[in-house]
Amino acid sequence: MHHARPPAPVPAAVPAVTGTLADPDTPFAVVDARRAAANVDRLAHRVRRLGVTLRPHVKTAKSLDAAAPGGGPPGPVAVSTLAEAEAFADGGHRDVTYAVGIDPRKLPRVLALLRRGVCVRLLLDSPEQARAVADAARREGVRVPAQIEVDCDGHRGGVRPDDPALTAIGRVLHDADCLDGVLTHAGESYFAYTPEDRLRAAEGERDAAVAAARALRAAGLPVPTVSVGSTPTAHAAEDLTGVTELRAGNYVFFDLVMAGLGVCRVEDLALSVVVTVIGHRPEYGRIVTDGGWMAMSRDRGTAAQARDQGYGLVASLDGVLVPGLVMTSASQEHGILTTRDGAPLPELPLGTRLRVLPNHACATAAQHPGYHVIDGAPGGPDGAPGELSAAPAVSAYWPRVTGW
Amino acid sequence: MHHARPPAPVPAAVPAVTGTLADPDTPFAVVDARRAAANVDRLAHRVRRLGVTLRPHVKTAKSLDAAAPGGGPPGPVAVSTLAEAEAFADGGHRDVTYAVGIDPRKLPRVLALLRRGVCVRLLLDSPEQARAVADAARREGVRVPAQIEVDCDGHRGGVRPDDPALTAIGRVLHDADCLDGVLTHAGESYFAYTPEDRLRAAEGERDAAVAAARALRAAGLPVPTVSVGSTPTAHAAEDLTGVTELRAGNYVFFDLVMAGLGVCRVEDLALSVVVTVIGHRPEYGRIVTDGGWMAMSRDRGTAAQARDQGYGLVASLDGVLVPGLVMTSASQEHGILTTRDGAPLPELPLGTRLRVLPNHACATAAQHPGYHVIDGAPGGPDGAPGELSAAPAVSAYWPRVTGW
Repeated sequence: MHHARPPAPVPAAVPAVTGTLADPDTPFAVVDARRAAANVDRLAHRVRRLGVTLRPHVKTAKSLDAAAPGGGPPGPVAVSTLAEAEAFADGGHRDVTYAVGIDPRKLPRVLALLRRGVCVRLLLDSPEQARAVADAARREGVRVPAQIEVDCDGHRGGVRPDDPALTAIGRVLHDADCLDGVLTHAGESYFAYTPEDRLRAAEGERDAAVAAARALRAAGLPVPTVSVGSTPTAHAAEDLTGVTELRAGNYVFFDLVMAGLGVCRVEDLALSVVVTVIGHRPEYGRIVTDGGWMAMSRDRGTAAQARDQGYGLVASLDGVLVPGLVMTSASQEHGILTTRDGAPLPELPLGTRLRVLPNHACATAAQHPGYHVIDGAPGGPDGAPGELSAAPAVSAYWPRVTGW
Repeated sequence: MHHARPPAPVPAAVPAVTGTLADPDTPFAVVDARRAAANVDRLAHRVRRLGVTLRPHVKTAKSLDAAAPGGGPPGPVAVSTLAEAEAFADGGHRDVTYAVGIDPRKLPRVLALLRRGVCVRLLLDSPEQARAVADAARREGVRVPAQIEVDCDGHRGGVRPDDPALTAIGRVLHDADCLDGVLTHAGESYFAYTPEDRLRAAEGERDAAVAAARALRAAGLPVPTVSVGSTPTAHAAEDLTGVTELRAGNYVFFDLVMAGLGVCRVEDLALSVVVTVIGHRPEYGRIVTDGGWMAMSRDRGTAAQARDQGYGLVASLDGVLVPGLVMTSASQEHGILTTRDGAPLPELPLGTRLRVLPNHACATAAQHPGYHVIDGAPGGPDGAPGELSAAPAVSAYWPRVTGW
């Protein structure tokens, strides 16, 4: 196989960490570490009460620093790419679930990680994939732990818990000592607009995973891992009996889609993009910034919600929302801000810096090489003209993992 | 100013260029160099006939290789970020228009390029910006060429040609020897669905730019550059009298939005994303791939067109469309393919590789560190099971410029 491994994701050079949010050239992504820590604490508290292990899905932040904001030891993670698996392995993580159905051609990279002592747990939902994994394990003499993806809501992939294919797959894996358990994800919970709907989605996730585990065990197959999770269901579940671990990713940053669902408040959003006012078109009621879709992504998840938040709500540099101001359109490197609800167009002189809160943290974060980190405290008087407020001090830079 | 320059965009490590599109791990972006060259030739021919200079906007491909596929000398370019300006300067380009309204705080990076002998032409549309540029030029003793953005269609920024601010800005620039000309962009041409509408948009661009130049000249101000352009108007213009240069970016790759407008054919699309089939849900009429919105972007530009093409049309590895197959939904690393127009779900075994043609080349390309390049010729018999057709040979890897 020729150059099967893609160009290695090169972490961006880490800039000097000095100054405030008024200093780096815009646009750039900023993480409010105090808010992120509060979001992490909130879910940690729930998970302890539920009696399961939390396996953070690092696909949102894709950052070793964000995965351990308090500097704790490397724990279990879920990843969405092998590039993440490799980066987190390099960062000391030894328990990594690659939560996308395995393409058998990617097995050489998985085997390389397993040989380094990294427990990479694969996901699959077909006998063909199971045979490919079992064959590789036997041929290479390496145990390749694999979980069977279970479909709990028709959202994406997976086998239904009552599908006979489930035990057929389980048997193929078990015969090669590869069966690690079952995994499900309530993708439809992103459209569950009431607490009752989210509780029902959480129960559906649990019930599907537990039913699948029961069917496998009834066939004499061991099921050590029973994994469920999504950010909305993780914050709604009340009883996870039979489940061993919970996965969630978005909860570290949250976003306007999650706020629109009611899973968090707008004040909990830990990710934003700093932009600069570069023009005014009062005749159209517009302010023009240097942050377009390249900085925000094209994700417009709130367009499907009761309150369409455009490309994002707009806050001052210290994180306070500017009343009624919304980023309503975008070209590649231009953002257009307008007001709604009768709010007057605010006076924001040329050079004013603003923070735009995103629809979808996973997509917006992916547009950036890393995060300037603030601890949420003001950084002292602001030397630049045109700022609404004090510019928070930058305390760190967290690079992101990129590529596949 | 502290760390005003962002982390340097690090080009991804260039992988060994061997094998075929069946080799690199998916998803990855591929450029059909033969199609790109034909697209470049098509516009070059038009521009020669129109008697203007072509200034390619490199914001789409963001690649030095793509900007000179035939290996010609570095020519004039337009860029959307200073990271592009710096990368193209490093690549030998000496005439760079930074076609986003200048944030005065970015002037130190501009001055650094000017001192290296790179003619960086700035864009602005307010007296405040003009004063900031003029002040910097005087203070630093460097000529800072700047163009005045002219609004031809209310799309984004710019001053109207009859706005008295135009000559006021021109005067401020001229007094510091910075006035370089006028620039306009018919952003609304992306919604011009007939050849007549696009011709009208092209004439509107020309008329606005020429009127602005005339107004400045009438005030005794020199206007060496009269710059217009967008991919739709560049392919529609018939008479550019009074214009000195034409800018266009998307035309190198084209995309489904341009095909939907009628600016190109689907067969002209030079950019696609290679994905692998990782699952089947025949009960839902779905095929699941490992290419989600992270690989395609969230751009759904064709949703506003008569024919919504989902996240993209699907072709075999050699570029032939699979009849009726569309990528209709996406999560971060999963793509869902379904059929329409009564087409049967094709037999695409696990591991089959496909190419997905994007809505918006600028947005899809931005999700990738670079491009695997093919010359459009088949690479010989394909050794992998499940391919529809021969896998084209990979002839090069073109890294992209990232960040700001």
